[in-house]
Amino acid sequence: MEQGQTPSEKPGNPPAQASLHELRTAENSAAYSLPKLQSMKQTNPHLKLLDVGAGSGTISASFAKLIPNGHVTGIDVNPNILPRARAVAEAAGIENIEFQEGSVYKLPFADETFDITVCHQVLIHIGTPWEALREMLRVTKRGGIVGVREGDYEMECVWPENSELSKFHELMAGLMRAGGGTPIAGRELVSWALKVGVEPSQIVLSYSTLSYSMPSERKACAQGLCDQLRGGGLRAKALKFDLGTQDEFEDMAKAWKDWMKRDDASLVLLQTEILIEK
Amino acid sequence: MEQGQTPSEKPGNPPAQASLHELRTAENSAAYSLPKLQSMKQTNPHLKLLDVGAGSGTISASFAKLIPNGHVTGIDVNPNILPRARAVAEAAGIENIEFQEGSVYKLPFADETFDITVCHQVLIHIGTPWEALREMLRVTKRGGIVGVREGDYEMECVWPENSELSKFHELMAGLMRAGGGTPIAGRELVSWALKVGVEPSQIVLSYSTLSYSMPSERKACAQGLCDQLRGGGLRAKALKFDLGTQDEFEDMAKAWKDWMKRDDASLVLLQTEILIEK
Repeated sequence: MEQGQTPSEKPGNPPAQASLHELRTAENSAAYSLPKLQSMKQTNPHLKLLDVGAGSGTISASFAKLIPNGHVTGIDVNPNILPRARAVAEAAGIENIEFQEGSVYKLPFADETFDITVCHQVLIHIGTPWEALREMLRVTKRGGIVGVREGDYEMECVWPENSELSKFHELMAGLMRAGGGTPIAGRELVSWALKVGVEPSQIVLSYSTLSYSMPSERKACAQGLCDQLRGGGLRAKALKFDLGTQDEFEDMAKAWKDWMKRDDASLVLLQTEILIEK
Repeated sequence: MEQGQTPSEKPGNPPAQASLHELRTAENSAAYSLPKLQSMKQTNPHLKLLDVGAGSGTISASFAKLIPNGHVTGIDVNPNILPRARAVAEAAGIENIEFQEGSVYKLPFADETFDITVCHQVLIHIGTPWEALREMLRVTKRGGIVGVREGDYEMECVWPENSELSKFHELMAGLMRAGGGTPIAGRELVSWALKVGVEPSQIVLSYSTLSYSMPSERKACAQGLCDQLRGGGLRAKALKFDLGTQDEFEDMAKAWKDWMKRDDASLVLLQTEILIEK
């Protein structure tokens, strides 16, 4: 299924994966970068921030709120998501923001344009993530920072386990491999930074978790995954790459609905973060 | 090798595993419990706290500092560690503390004795952890709290990977199974609490990480693990259960020393925490 074919994917409306993605904010997904952002803002209220792979733009928009006298640029390689990102920012009354199409491998900006360049769950999806990191460093000013937060497919834990949920995990890993991504991105972040010439002393490494365990969190998680299994880009891609059948996806969706109802159910994903001072 | 046979294991001196264990404090290993402890202290400065499986007592001692008008009891099933725990507390000038022998399955205290009962990396080592949790709840007063923090052997990530470090992971898991423990304790904590009658609304679940990535952290980690591989209880137990040879342990120790020297090396362990309001 292509973008824009279903009512939920009309420009400006959330796509199928959005119910989870649009819960993301700078506060819950880029907390590791905020103390440094706040200290930089003291010196320069007019910070320019680039959010690479902005998607629906909820992280970009919350960054823009944090630097009301600065400016945020969100870019995404998928032009079909940009109207949604603009709608999210507009609905929040945010004006110091713009979204445009662009690839992390060839950012459409001059050297040293931004004070802060960030991405979230982007490098995990691509084949030569260190080249992306090199490009993010290029467009960042000296004295600025580059921040990256990525997951690690081998550091995900779902409880209680069952065969359908295990198959779902394999499906997601298969999709990532089919797309040329790097499922264990988190643990490799520092290696990638060193590979493009960053010194160890420039890097601050940290970890956090993304978890769904409260009833409302479990419901949002299960609903979001069911939406993806029953429609939208994930399902279409999985069928295209022959990673499962529609019946199997339906069984997985039912398993997530059952999981959601259990008082002891949880899903936790380790997140690795690096903050590079350029 | 039995406790007390080597100079490093004389009473009052740190045992072989201590260089890592004794880095533990309430602040770095029980942070999830501290906001609640501080609010309880406002109402009652004379809090009574029980630390189950206190080991070298560094966590117990730092709890005692946090409640100077309260009292901490540390218990451990291994009487040979108690002199070390007492020495640690004495060296820190802490007087509102005592250590005694005791099993988590049969705590030597009356019902509702403590305001706060905690343990750290204890339930992961035992066969019926929910019975331990039931016992911790028994000795805790109504209105008090029980706090537990446990790791999960499938949620550990070492980078860069190699065959020796993978074998080390298998060795540790093998030791735990040989001892009757539960390697994936973290994810099961809520299930265990529900099993002994705790209501979901009484439980706060949280996650954190324990990581070694800075040069000083990597050095402490590698040194601690090498100490265990080259002497002390871990090596003795591994040989007893035929989980490897001395040559293999030496190869693992060398692999940790090599790992330590790499700028991109890291070890991260997910930690699960539950705080139960009784």
